[in-house]
Amino acid sequence: MYSVNRFELYNPVKVVYGKGEFERSNEIFGISNVLVVCDPYVSTSDYFKKAMSRYKSVFVFDKILPNPPCEMVDEIIDIVNESEKKGLKFEGVIGIGGGSTLDTTKAVSALLLSDGKLSEYLEGKKKFEKRLPLMLIPTTSGTGSEVTNVGVYTLNGIKKPMTSPMFWADIALIDPVLTYSMPRRVAATTGLDALTHAIESYWATSTQPFTEGLALRATKMILESFRATIDGEEWARDEMSIAANIAGIAFSQTRTTAAHAISFPITSFYNVEHGLACALTLPSLIRWTYEHIPQKMDELVVYLNFKDINDLAVRIEELIEYAGFSLHLRDYGVKEDDLERIASVSMEARIIDLTPGKPQYEDVLEFLRRIY
Amino acid sequence: MYSVNRFELYNPVKVVYGKGEFERSNEIFGISNVLVVCDPYVSTSDYFKKAMSRYKSVFVFDKILPNPPCEMVDEIIDIVNESEKKGLKFEGVIGIGGGSTLDTTKAVSALLLSDGKLSEYLEGKKKFEKRLPLMLIPTTSGTGSEVTNVGVYTLNGIKKPMTSPMFWADIALIDPVLTYSMPRRVAATTGLDALTHAIESYWATSTQPFTEGLALRATKMILESFRATIDGEEWARDEMSIAANIAGIAFSQTRTTAAHAISFPITSFYNVEHGLACALTLPSLIRWTYEHIPQKMDELVVYLNFKDINDLAVRIEELIEYAGFSLHLRDYGVKEDDLERIASVSMEARIIDLTPGKPQYEDVLEFLRRIY
Repeated sequence: MYSVNRFELYNPVKVVYGKGEFERSNEIFGISNVLVVCDPYVSTSDYFKKAMSRYKSVFVFDKILPNPPCEMVDEIIDIVNESEKKGLKFEGVIGIGGGSTLDTTKAVSALLLSDGKLSEYLEGKKKFEKRLPLMLIPTTSGTGSEVTNVGVYTLNGIKKPMTSPMFWADIALIDPVLTYSMPRRVAATTGLDALTHAIESYWATSTQPFTEGLALRATKMILESFRATIDGEEWARDEMSIAANIAGIAFSQTRTTAAHAISFPITSFYNVEHGLACALTLPSLIRWTYEHIPQKMDELVVYLNFKDINDLAVRIEELIEYAGFSLHLRDYGVKEDDLERIASVSMEARIIDLTPGKPQYEDVLEFLRRIY
Repeated sequence: MYSVNRFELYNPVKVVYGKGEFERSNEIFGISNVLVVCDPYVSTSDYFKKAMSRYKSVFVFDKILPNPPCEMVDEIIDIVNESEKKGLKFEGVIGIGGGSTLDTTKAVSALLLSDGKLSEYLEGKKKFEKRLPLMLIPTTSGTGSEVTNVGVYTLNGIKKPMTSPMFWADIALIDPVLTYSMPRRVAATTGLDALTHAIESYWATSTQPFTEGLALRATKMILESFRATIDGEEWARDEMSIAANIAGIAFSQTRTTAAHAISFPITSFYNVEHGLACALTLPSLIRWTYEHIPQKMDELVVYLNFKDINDLAVRIEELIEYAGFSLHLRDYGVKEDDLERIASVSMEARIIDLTPGKPQYEDVLEFLRRIY
């Protein structure tokens, strides 16, 4: 018997997937004069230059900082406005890179047609009403930012998420060739992010059959291709680029849960990569969740062809270790005395309540102790 | 290893699901003066009257014919234009009913802002460029029309499908309460339609992981709730309304395959209900498909908890019989001599090529002989 009472589904982004599609991005986007926001290593690649040669005019901003500060976004707007005074005109904006770059591009596409500074929108004083045509092209397989309406920006040193209907891109172009150059460590941490998105959107209390189906399929693909992705095999990077995108569509509807909530302080205080910080508590949370929704978790275990839930949790621990990472917080510079602070900051993220069984402070502390 | 080379995903329809949500459809739609196209048994129900009392003005057209003729759609436009001369103004259009009603409503919403007759658009002489705001509310759990960009209309006695970007609704409102009054036979035939959509979008050569995930989940829900849906149990009708919608989203991306192709002549020549006509060849096609994509079909079998592929095919035969239908074409007035004609008309539907193993005329004839 099914227990969902009410839900909504909405994701208007058109996804185009294909090996080599980046080269004909101009046809897919359908415009000639573009502003491109990208990572610096993208802008110097031959693949980028070849793709961009198809446009009539291209203006590139490639000085993206991670965890994009509001001031950087405002600065891009100033630079672009200056260039427009010199006669350049943009019909649309393209973002090419990881999560920070895609989030920056979302804000740029909206701010170029709006008044004021990004901080005013981030703080809710103003709302975006329009944006330029927007195409997002990920170069990692993890964040799913290309298919969400969320952007995360840093204001006064603090990371803050915002959602806007203007942040749904027109097109998410997934060309796995762009992910072939990911270093092993980036492939591992972003892959763990995608895995966490998939599993969290499967079990979230906000899930429903649409997102469950996507999460099932994405989890299977990620587990099948994770090791080979890290090892740089192209077939696996193709699979992972699809799976991360699907996991992104799933969590664009459900949001994430405790693994993400607990990752925030681990990343902020100890500079642990986002996907890795998420995955560290995932095995404990899989066991916890099983206590609360055993039938549903068993359906996942059966589909994934594991013996039982513990078998799944152990596989994830093995994958983290295969990627070269420790399973223990102590190895990331965490002191035992810090665990209470990590737990209490985790509890501030409201998404923690979307976890089955609603873990409380003491439960989170227990998860942390188990992996200390 | 994953073998898809290129795909696109796009479905901009916002789905709102909830028991009783029909009563607050005005809030969900956000407009006050509406044109409503619906089945006659809908317009006389108390539930309809209650929901409509929330609007400022409501103009109802409820004389919908099945397999909507172009002339009927044009006539609705004339009637509405007459009423507008008398001072009525519509901000949007609502369709409430089965597939024929929803398809009619799609065309009405576009034609009201366009010149000419529907036949000109159906024949490709003109293209719709705009439409009025559009909300679609299914009263059966089968067609998925509320989340596709397809409409099927009858011109000179022949059913013809057309797609238009204008046919994506703004909102698909799924209120299972509207399906509680479906007679047993309608619940059965529309449920079989949903089952066929789910399984065909799983195996279609045009499928990809996104649609596979949706198809897996929808198939499981449909098989779990089918008998109880027919027997009128509300929990099952809730599940089926969700599952049919998800199957609709899946096949809105993949299209359907041989089961649909073969159903067209069976429906046209012998007046067998669409969903039933689709399901008759489904068990044979499941066995055929297994020959061509065994691993993928095994993944479905494992997830659904069947022993093997034959076990799944037999279950579907049992469900058709449980619904009170014969598995044999001879019981629907088909003569053995007709099988060749049915096979050759089936081959005219181009979707047949999306079936794994691309069945040829002789193969289709064999499917038909097996169920004769």
